[in-house]
Amino acid sequence: MARTGTEELRRRNRAALVEQLHRHGPQTRAELTEALGLNRSTIGALAADLAETGHLHETTGRSTGSAGRPSTLVECVPKAATVTAVEIRVDRVRFALVGLGGEVLERAEAELDGADPVDAIEVVTGGAARDALEAVAAVPGLVDAGVVAHSTELGWAGRDLAADLAAATGRAWQVVDTATAAAVGEWSRGDAHESTKLLYLHGGRGLTAGLVVDGRAQRGGSIQLGHIVVQPGGHECGCGLRGCLEAEMEVFGYAEDIEYATLAAGMGDAAARDGLRRSGEDLGRALGAVVTATGPDEILFGGWLRELYLSTAAPVRSALAETTLPHLRSRLRLRTPVLGDEGALIGAAETGFAAVIDGMR
Amino acid sequence: MARTGTEELRRRNRAALVEQLHRHGPQTRAELTEALGLNRSTIGALAADLAETGHLHETTGRSTGSAGRPSTLVECVPKAATVTAVEIRVDRVRFALVGLGGEVLERAEAELDGADPVDAIEVVTGGAARDALEAVAAVPGLVDAGVVAHSTELGWAGRDLAADLAAATGRAWQVVDTATAAAVGEWSRGDAHESTKLLYLHGGRGLTAGLVVDGRAQRGGSIQLGHIVVQPGGHECGCGLRGCLEAEMEVFGYAEDIEYATLAAGMGDAAARDGLRRSGEDLGRALGAVVTATGPDEILFGGWLRELYLSTAAPVRSALAETTLPHLRSRLRLRTPVLGDEGALIGAAETGFAAVIDGMR
Repeated sequence: MARTGTEELRRRNRAALVEQLHRHGPQTRAELTEALGLNRSTIGALAADLAETGHLHETTGRSTGSAGRPSTLVECVPKAATVTAVEIRVDRVRFALVGLGGEVLERAEAELDGADPVDAIEVVTGGAARDALEAVAAVPGLVDAGVVAHSTELGWAGRDLAADLAAATGRAWQVVDTATAAAVGEWSRGDAHESTKLLYLHGGRGLTAGLVVDGRAQRGGSIQLGHIVVQPGGHECGCGLRGCLEAEMEVFGYAEDIEYATLAAGMGDAAARDGLRRSGEDLGRALGAVVTATGPDEILFGGWLRELYLSTAAPVRSALAETTLPHLRSRLRLRTPVLGDEGALIGAAETGFAAVIDGMR
Repeated sequence: MARTGTEELRRRNRAALVEQLHRHGPQTRAELTEALGLNRSTIGALAADLAETGHLHETTGRSTGSAGRPSTLVECVPKAATVTAVEIRVDRVRFALVGLGGEVLERAEAELDGADPVDAIEVVTGGAARDALEAVAAVPGLVDAGVVAHSTELGWAGRDLAADLAAATGRAWQVVDTATAAAVGEWSRGDAHESTKLLYLHGGRGLTAGLVVDGRAQRGGSIQLGHIVVQPGGHECGCGLRGCLEAEMEVFGYAEDIEYATLAAGMGDAAARDGLRRSGEDLGRALGAVVTATGPDEILFGGWLRELYLSTAAPVRSALAETTLPHLRSRLRLRTPVLGDEGALIGAAETGFAAVIDGMR
């Protein structure tokens, strides 16, 4: 029963070729033959087919090898498939229109000044959102099927953002949390492609995390890291629970000043140093529970957690070691992200392209 | 680019029809038309096609409605696709050969008496394993890509069970942990089909958990629940960590006597009652972290955790409420499984059938 139709196979191969070029940039036919495990004539036929549909074109470009003979490169046509990506922050929205291959075709940003992010997005994306194949919004908080269940940052609870964006802009939107978007970004365009199960931690006004498997967002992969209880019966948290990581972490209150705290600790301020160490331990313990429950192979510390991790790696690692089985620790890499502030917007766009390429299969 | 070939569509529809009959049992063509949203002539053509390949046949059976006129039923042919399922326990292995539609065609069980489970499986499955389309083993512990990373129950660490079973029986095996298998079983053949993200807790010699999404096992969904640290710096655990749930739960040491403890508590034994309550609180706190990290909509308490939950539901729920955000709690159902001791073996078989049906698409 496992017959595969010729047309189906050709469609899958076309999608694989587009994905390859989108992810890795322009390549020669020989490189594509190697990367996709198809023969040269199949690649030729697929490339001709995709040139006709306007997805790619061939150029004489880069010289290869010692002979220096210029070689024909196959590359994506950016406008063949565009994705609208927006990132909502507490004080601004950012927009990028990204073309196939990853080129940013348009960019814009707007301060919110108290305005509703949805209204700002309607203005800032203009007509671009309507023409894009996919539109994806990244938002800080706990996201579940288009609904922002909880956002410390924006003060939202149970807001159906996908519906609000659709109403404002006249098209369908995907919604992902900022940490998950950043994880997708680091996996696709950063340095985390080796990871099969990547946990991205985001320090903003709240502490959130996003879990992606093979670079894809997971249902329930949006994690409220800040509300892992690390101290039963501990300090009262804004969410109504007690002993949450956000309530217990001493540096949490001056997160915006994490660089100042690090500097003070470095200059011998014992209180700052102890506060940082205890915060690292609390973070490590919360991570122990998340790692036990989800089994990632890589953790990236993003937002202000990047600075915290860089100055407290030892206590984070030792608290994690005290709360995680050796098997789960042994394959776990702890690192900082490479895309910095851009990760979530890039990841929102790549979440859209994953859907575009899936639609070609 | 999103063309769908006719042959591909027909193949998908055939798989959907087989899945429908496998999951829900014999149905009339009218019921199939309704359930699959296809028209009557398409169903007729698919059924004829699948009758020819030997997957199903039509019988005159059940009478319907007040007229009592017997109606033609479409049903699976069990031998058209069989799955070998085994469950490894600390003292025995259990085997079932299951046919398409869920009928158990053969059953066997063997005491281990110190023998290696793989050798016992080779004997107990006989030739049956070789002829089945899929073979799946459920094993208590932390399973990752065929490897049993850690099993308190069997005293294994890093055993490549998939490879060992393949060597012993001459065929490929899938390996899932017992809790995940039981979750798949409860979703497929039990009472948990409404759940999109189901967390099954298994109390054996160790405490494990399995997370399935839409009834499917997830990479990293095998969770060592017993090694969530609920008391930093607490009692030493067999795994080398301190304060693990298994080390802190007072009833854990006499898990086999949980019914006795419940009975004693019921008869007014204050020490037994307090021990049960504290154990329920520890369990609820560990669950708080797992729920925050994974966001299930249903939790089933299996193995001896079933008895513990039935006698300590209030403390489990209140400790969970103290450690989980309202949004995550509000949609969460806590229940006990309905398949009892059979869940893992049934779920191992259903894990195999999911692969069989995927292969038809």
